[in-house]
Amino acid sequence: MTNRSTLIFDTLAVDRSLELPLHRQLYELLRSYILGGRLAAGSSLPATRSLATHLGVGRNTVVAAYEQLLAEGYLEAGPGSGTWVAPMLQRAAEQRGRAAAPAAPRISRRGTVLASRPQPARQPSTINLHPGFPDTASFPFAGWARLLARNAQRRTADLFDYYRFAGHPALREAIADYLRVARGVDCSPEQIVVVTGAQAGLDLVARIVTDEGDVAWMEEPGYLGARSALLGSGARLAPLRCHRQGWGLADAGLPPPRLIYVTPSCQWPLGTIMRMEERLQLLEIAERHDAWIIEDDYDGEYRFRGRPAPAMQGLDHAGRVIYIGTFGKTLFQSLRLGFLVVPTALADTFNRAVSVTGQFAPLLLQVTLADFIRQGHFASHLKRMRRLYARRQERFVELCRQQLGPWMTVDANDSGIQLLGRFTRPLDDQQVAAAALAQGVDVQPVSINYHHDVPEHGLLLGYAGLDERQTVAAIAALQAAFRSLDAA
Amino acid sequence: MTNRSTLIFDTLAVDRSLELPLHRQLYELLRSYILGGRLAAGSSLPATRSLATHLGVGRNTVVAAYEQLLAEGYLEAGPGSGTWVAPMLQRAAEQRGRAAAPAAPRISRRGTVLASRPQPARQPSTINLHPGFPDTASFPFAGWARLLARNAQRRTADLFDYYRFAGHPALREAIADYLRVARGVDCSPEQIVVVTGAQAGLDLVARIVTDEGDVAWMEEPGYLGARSALLGSGARLAPLRCHRQGWGLADAGLPPPRLIYVTPSCQWPLGTIMRMEERLQLLEIAERHDAWIIEDDYDGEYRFRGRPAPAMQGLDHAGRVIYIGTFGKTLFQSLRLGFLVVPTALADTFNRAVSVTGQFAPLLLQVTLADFIRQGHFASHLKRMRRLYARRQERFVELCRQQLGPWMTVDANDSGIQLLGRFTRPLDDQQVAAAALAQGVDVQPVSINYHHDVPEHGLLLGYAGLDERQTVAAIAALQAAFRSLDAA
Repeated sequence: MTNRSTLIFDTLAVDRSLELPLHRQLYELLRSYILGGRLAAGSSLPATRSLATHLGVGRNTVVAAYEQLLAEGYLEAGPGSGTWVAPMLQRAAEQRGRAAAPAAPRISRRGTVLASRPQPARQPSTINLHPGFPDTASFPFAGWARLLARNAQRRTADLFDYYRFAGHPALREAIADYLRVARGVDCSPEQIVVVTGAQAGLDLVARIVTDEGDVAWMEEPGYLGARSALLGSGARLAPLRCHRQGWGLADAGLPPPRLIYVTPSCQWPLGTIMRMEERLQLLEIAERHDAWIIEDDYDGEYRFRGRPAPAMQGLDHAGRVIYIGTFGKTLFQSLRLGFLVVPTALADTFNRAVSVTGQFAPLLLQVTLADFIRQGHFASHLKRMRRLYARRQERFVELCRQQLGPWMTVDANDSGIQLLGRFTRPLDDQQVAAAALAQGVDVQPVSINYHHDVPEHGLLLGYAGLDERQTVAAIAALQAAFRSLDAA
Repeated sequence: MTNRSTLIFDTLAVDRSLELPLHRQLYELLRSYILGGRLAAGSSLPATRSLATHLGVGRNTVVAAYEQLLAEGYLEAGPGSGTWVAPMLQRAAEQRGRAAAPAAPRISRRGTVLASRPQPARQPSTINLHPGFPDTASFPFAGWARLLARNAQRRTADLFDYYRFAGHPALREAIADYLRVARGVDCSPEQIVVVTGAQAGLDLVARIVTDEGDVAWMEEPGYLGARSALLGSGARLAPLRCHRQGWGLADAGLPPPRLIYVTPSCQWPLGTIMRMEERLQLLEIAERHDAWIIEDDYDGEYRFRGRPAPAMQGLDHAGRVIYIGTFGKTLFQSLRLGFLVVPTALADTFNRAVSVTGQFAPLLLQVTLADFIRQGHFASHLKRMRRLYARRQERFVELCRQQLGPWMTVDANDSGIQLLGRFTRPLDDQQVAAAALAQGVDVQPVSINYHHDVPEHGLLLGYAGLDERQTVAAIAALQAAFRSLDAA
């Protein structure tokens, strides 16, 4: 034993008040000394008996710690020659000495793309005006918790084994039934693929139908999350231009598509509903080009005058439409349950592929949601929410007119749980969002939904989740934000 | 009205006993007649008054149904000229007439790869001998359900908004603490990325660190799910050959890697534990090539003699190791919760990228699991399971020796919740698995884990989830399966 290591061993101590067994404490200490370089590679350890005396523990404690470290290769021992730190740990110690992580970690081009366009995150402790958030206060949590607790104690095999990665039969059936009646979707349970949210669905579809370089028509402006998923899959985007009047399907400049992404029930972010002739034209285009259509029906349930327009999928007799739905806008986002309705010809492909991408959903949440739908809670919640959101939208528009008129126009819309606010003077919406955040309101600039064209600036306002008090506060804060920019 | 359509309208009827409003019933019927082609494009509809009389309903009912169909573009009307089916629906009807889906739907090369190597699915109503399944009967469901129900009623903002897509702070902290103590992983909560299971983690890492054509060293034999994720990302696989003696790290023929996939705590499927000198050598290789290592610690918690060997990640001072863990093997698989520990330099990249791939997990399950860990349930469950599995493994090996000796050798193993059964005579393991299934036992052939080399044949036996009765029955069924093949 050298002097240096004697000094080091003097610093060793165990603590009898801890729950961790003494031999385990000693093991952890010695291991951290070795990995941290305090005990150099090749240096000797004290005899078990003398270390035991120093620590005031039984010799077996030291023996157990040494044995574990020997078994794991941190220590070596020879007959009659004591115990020493494994010389091969030299390199680990050297590495430790040098700089830690590589300066610019090498990630893939694809990884760079995926990380470059993240979904907007929420800021804590602010009023949430982000689009796409339903009202959570009105959600029937007590009933939901009861169903959850009951299912969490069921021990039947269907809850523990995956027979079909595409989803639990009870939920696939409940979704198919619901979609047939409420959304005019023409499907059987076998066509349903339950996934961990609509974003997972977009990522999955993009990967299964496009290869790197394939052309995807993407709405312009269009939903950021869909565009990110398409770019992440390596697709080349062609802008399918959208206006308040409709979709630019006659645009001669578009290259033949492999995939077409649309939001016919409520164009994101403009709020337009696709007309029947546009729907039929789009289906014809898809068939002509042997292309797929993603119908993102993220918000289809919410229409305030008359009943919701049926999904385009119901018009598709050629098996071209892949429908994406989510419970994030009807129940709550953090539930992470969405689904696809895929043409029958693709059902098996998706079932198999999702087992590899890991985007299939927890069975407990699936069966609980199936119960929630079957027992009628889902339909009655939706009905209540439609009435609530109609009232809230009216009030929100009224307050915006009264207080934000000089800066922004907010028109009522027949569908959707967010509204587009258009600036009436030249303002940068990122700056407005930053100013709003400083006033305690978290809001989304609409320009993030533009990719090819010079963006329109404005705000995409999620009015649905706010009660009267929050609505009043949010709009006052927006007014203060606009004023602060005027003053600057 | 033509004769033909008169006949069609005669078939219309509404049912007052249904909950669906009458105008809604009529709307659905007419829409389905139009889409199904029974009402041809351009054909006239009866006057509202005469149809109302025929149906025995108020005229307003018919008016409401017609108005909805007009609004949605299924019908058209002219002043004084009645109402007719929109002529543009001609095409939809024509499509309907022709064959439905395309014969061979065009999916991407990547989609073909993803769908070509699915995770093995379980067969219902069989004894589950698949590897990787923990015992679910011993899981403390009552306590788990209580925690779930409590959290399901919490309405705090942290449960509804995603502030960080990489996971809820409480769970990231609980996992980091657990890993430091139990697995020797050197990490802070910011390095944890909670994902929807280990498979999602593999898919995510493969995509973020490799581009199409990049070389990945993959264990041979090696875990099917990891190989599928790597192939799905477009990586070129180089076989890192594994034997009972260890890892073939000195293989001169391997091209420089971008990524190296290993299972050091318990090689899948061989069960070998990686020696210290191999761990250090691997870290050195990764640094030399500016490559990443995936350490898949799917089973690291289960070691039966002595405490589990610490993870390789703790030896990595150069920030090269991406650690993957799962609660699927310690709690239950259908929970769909796994996690990554990424080097600090990659933490932000992963947080952003996972928001696009949709592989982040439901917050309710995250906070419930955080409680479960914090309150000590996780540690005590693991402790109980380690003892239970040690006993079960011993018994399983004993029964195999007694009853399956002529066909298969099953050696005890110090780690893991599955055992490799090696055939002692030339048998095709796919045939054995099929014969076992006929006897009511669902078992996995080990050959599916080979990719480059001529596979060894045998069975990967998940003994951990079976009680005494099921174990006896499973082994008797395997014996019967072997006998049936001998007789054939």
